[in-house]
Amino acid sequence: MPAVQAPQMRVGVIGLGGAARQMLPSFQTHPHVVIAAGADPREDARDAFSTEFSAPAFAHPEDLCSCSDVDVVYIATPHQLHREHAVLAARAGKHIIVEKPMALTLEDCDAMIEAAEHAKVLLVVGHTHAFDAPIIEMRRLICEGAIGPLALINNFNYTNFLYRPRRYEELRTESGGGAIYNQAPHQVDIVRLLGGGKVESVRSASWALDPDRPTDGAYSAFLQFEGGAVAVIVYSGYDFFDSDQFHDWVGELGESKPSGLNGSARRALSALPAGADESALKAQRGLGGKPSPSHDDPASRAHPHFGVTIVTGRDGDLRQTARGLEHYGREGIREIAIPGPKVFPDKSGLVDEMYDAFAGQQPLLRDGHWARATMEVCLAIRQSALEGREIQLSRQVGI
Amino acid sequence: MPAVQAPQMRVGVIGLGGAARQMLPSFQTHPHVVIAAGADPREDARDAFSTEFSAPAFAHPEDLCSCSDVDVVYIATPHQLHREHAVLAARAGKHIIVEKPMALTLEDCDAMIEAAEHAKVLLVVGHTHAFDAPIIEMRRLICEGAIGPLALINNFNYTNFLYRPRRYEELRTESGGGAIYNQAPHQVDIVRLLGGGKVESVRSASWALDPDRPTDGAYSAFLQFEGGAVAVIVYSGYDFFDSDQFHDWVGELGESKPSGLNGSARRALSALPAGADESALKAQRGLGGKPSPSHDDPASRAHPHFGVTIVTGRDGDLRQTARGLEHYGREGIREIAIPGPKVFPDKSGLVDEMYDAFAGQQPLLRDGHWARATMEVCLAIRQSALEGREIQLSRQVGI
Repeated sequence: MPAVQAPQMRVGVIGLGGAARQMLPSFQTHPHVVIAAGADPREDARDAFSTEFSAPAFAHPEDLCSCSDVDVVYIATPHQLHREHAVLAARAGKHIIVEKPMALTLEDCDAMIEAAEHAKVLLVVGHTHAFDAPIIEMRRLICEGAIGPLALINNFNYTNFLYRPRRYEELRTESGGGAIYNQAPHQVDIVRLLGGGKVESVRSASWALDPDRPTDGAYSAFLQFEGGAVAVIVYSGYDFFDSDQFHDWVGELGESKPSGLNGSARRALSALPAGADESALKAQRGLGGKPSPSHDDPASRAHPHFGVTIVTGRDGDLRQTARGLEHYGREGIREIAIPGPKVFPDKSGLVDEMYDAFAGQQPLLRDGHWARATMEVCLAIRQSALEGREIQLSRQVGI
Repeated sequence: MPAVQAPQMRVGVIGLGGAARQMLPSFQTHPHVVIAAGADPREDARDAFSTEFSAPAFAHPEDLCSCSDVDVVYIATPHQLHREHAVLAARAGKHIIVEKPMALTLEDCDAMIEAAEHAKVLLVVGHTHAFDAPIIEMRRLICEGAIGPLALINNFNYTNFLYRPRRYEELRTESGGGAIYNQAPHQVDIVRLLGGGKVESVRSASWALDPDRPTDGAYSAFLQFEGGAVAVIVYSGYDFFDSDQFHDWVGELGESKPSGLNGSARRALSALPAGADESALKAQRGLGGKPSPSHDDPASRAHPHFGVTIVTGRDGDLRQTARGLEHYGREGIREIAIPGPKVFPDKSGLVDEMYDAFAGQQPLLRDGHWARATMEVCLAIRQSALEGREIQLSRQVGI
C-alpha cells in the first residue's frame, strides 16, 4: 500500500516589505511549504526575493495570482490594499493569508469574506501573536478545564512601537496607522482566543501623545465577553516603560533583549539628519534592504509574545512566560515548558494552521469571520475612545 | 525668644484588632504623637494594650471619647460600626481617623462628614496605600509636570487576600466583606490621587469564585477621569499568581517575601482541623494575640506598596518600585530613590498628614469628602459589576 503523500502548499507573497521578511522563514521551515513566487512594485525587492528563493517575482500582483503553481497567496501589502489583493487572489482561486489588520473597515472585511466564500478558498488573517505556541497551549488548557470557568484576562504591553521607522500614512490613524489598527489586533486576537471569541461590549480610551507622530500610540480597553469573562488590555508604544522587563527581558519575537534601552528608538529617530527619509529606513526592513542584525541566538531562543498575559479562572491562573507557561493552582506553581521555536522569528503557528486546513487535516480554527470579529473589536476601541461610551458589538463569533 | 513648641497629638484607639496593631508602630514613631487610650470589648486585648502602651483601655468607646487627654480618635472597629463611632468621636470634639473602608454606604459617609463638620474636627480615612511615600512622591512629580499631562494609570495586584483568616461577616459582601470593600479603597485612593481625584464613570466586573468564601475576591475596572485620563485597575485575591513577583518579591508591607509561596495561604486554611475557628485565628492578629513573626528586616526594608503601579503621561512613565520610583523619559531611565521607612509596617504617611493638619501646619490633603469620593467609586465598581453597565458618578472631588 503506498504511503499517503503530504500535499505541497505553494505560497506566493504579495508585498515584499518588513512583514514578508519576518514571515518568510516560517514558510521556509515548514516541510511541505514551497515559496513559489513574489510580487512587489520595487525592483530591488523583487531581485532580492528571486535571488534568495529562486522563484519568480512580479511587478504586479495580478501576474502572481495567475501563476498556476501558486496555491496560497500571502498578502503583506499596505493595509489599504488588503481588500483589493484578497479579492484578486480569491477570484484567481487562491487560498489567502492576509496580514493584520485584516482591513480598515468592516465593509472591506465583508467583501474579502464574500470573495473567499464565493471562490471556496480558505481565508486566514495573521500573523498575530495569538498564533504563538504558549497562547495556543493556554487556550488548550483553558478548554480542558485546567483553571475552571474563566473570569479575567489581563494583557498589557509597553513598547517602542511609535518610534519604529514609518511611512507617512502609518502615522495617521485615518490611513491605517497607529496602535489601535496595528497593535490591538494582536491583543484582541489573544484575549478573544482565550476568552472564547464573543465580545459583547467595549469601553476604551486612546491617546495621541506626540504631535510629531499624530496617531494613537496608547490605548486601554475593557472587553466584556459573553458568559461573564472580561479582558482588560493596556497598550503604550511611547518607548518609556518596557513591559518586557516583566518577561525576563525577552523581546516580542523571542529574542534576548538588553535591559535599559528604554527611549533609544525615539532617540535614534530624533538623531536622523534633517531631511532624512524615515520611510527609506522602513524600507530597509523589507526584501532588498539591509535589516538590523538579528538578535536571535538559537541556543537561548524563547517564545515570541505580546506583553504580559495573565488569565484568572475559578481554579487557577495561567501566565505566559518566555519558555512556555506558568500554572498557579491550589497546589502551587507548575511550570509548563513548551519546546522552543525551530525558526526565528517564529510565526509557524499561522503556517501550521493554514497548512493543516489546506491539506484537509482539520478546518481552519480562525477564518475570515474570526478575523472580522477581531477587527470589529479594534474599531470599537477606536469608536469608544472617540465617543467616551461603551460600544455594543454584533459581528462576534466563537471558536 | 522661646522656640515654638510643637504640639502633642494624643491618640485614642477604638478597636484593638489587626488593623490597630499594624497602625500603632507608626503612631509610636512620630515624635509628637502619644498613644493615650484604647477601647475594645475583649479584655485580653485591653490588657495587652495597657501593658504595652502604659495607657488606659476601656470596654466602651464612649468612655474613651470622654477622656479629656485624647485629641484624635483612630477608629479600627468592624466596618459596620465606623459611622456610629465616628459620630460618637465627633460629638466628643475629637479629631477622627477612620480605617478604610470609610463606611458601607454613602449615607453613612454623609453622616460622618456632617458630624465632623458640625463639630469642626478633622476627619481622614486610612491607612490606604495612597499614603505610601512612593505614591506621594509620584503625585508630586506629576503635579510638577515631570511626565506632562496624564493619560493612563495602570494598577494591578494579585494577592492571597481571600485566604487570610476572616470573621464570618468578612466573607459576605453585604456585611462589608470581599475585595471591593476592602481592597479597592487602596487602588481607588491611589489612582484618584495620581489622576487628580475626579472620576466621571466606572465600568467594571467582579467575581466570587470560591463558594466556600462567598464574597467578591476579584474585580477589574475602567475608570474615566475628568480631563481625559483613565485608570485601569485589576485585582485578584485568590492566591494564585502573585504580582509581587514583578516588584522584586517585596510584599505589601515592604517586607522581603520568599518566592513560590503561591497557594500557601489557601492551603493553610484548608489544613485547619474540622470545627477549627477561623475567626479566632483572625483575632490572633490583634492586640493580645500571637501574630505571625514579622518578616521585617530594617536593613533591607523596602517601601510598602499595593501591586504594580505604572503611570503614563505625554512625556514619560513613572513606575513604583521597592526603593522608590523609576522615571522613564525621553532620555531613558532615572531611578528615584526614596529614603526607606523608619518603621514597620510604615503607615507614617497617614500619621504625618493628620499631625500636620492637627498642628495647623497645613490643611488635610485628603478629608472626609475625598474619602467619600473613593467610596463612591468602590460602590460603583460593585454596582457596575452587578448591572453590567457604565455608572456615572456625582460625588467626586479633586485635590
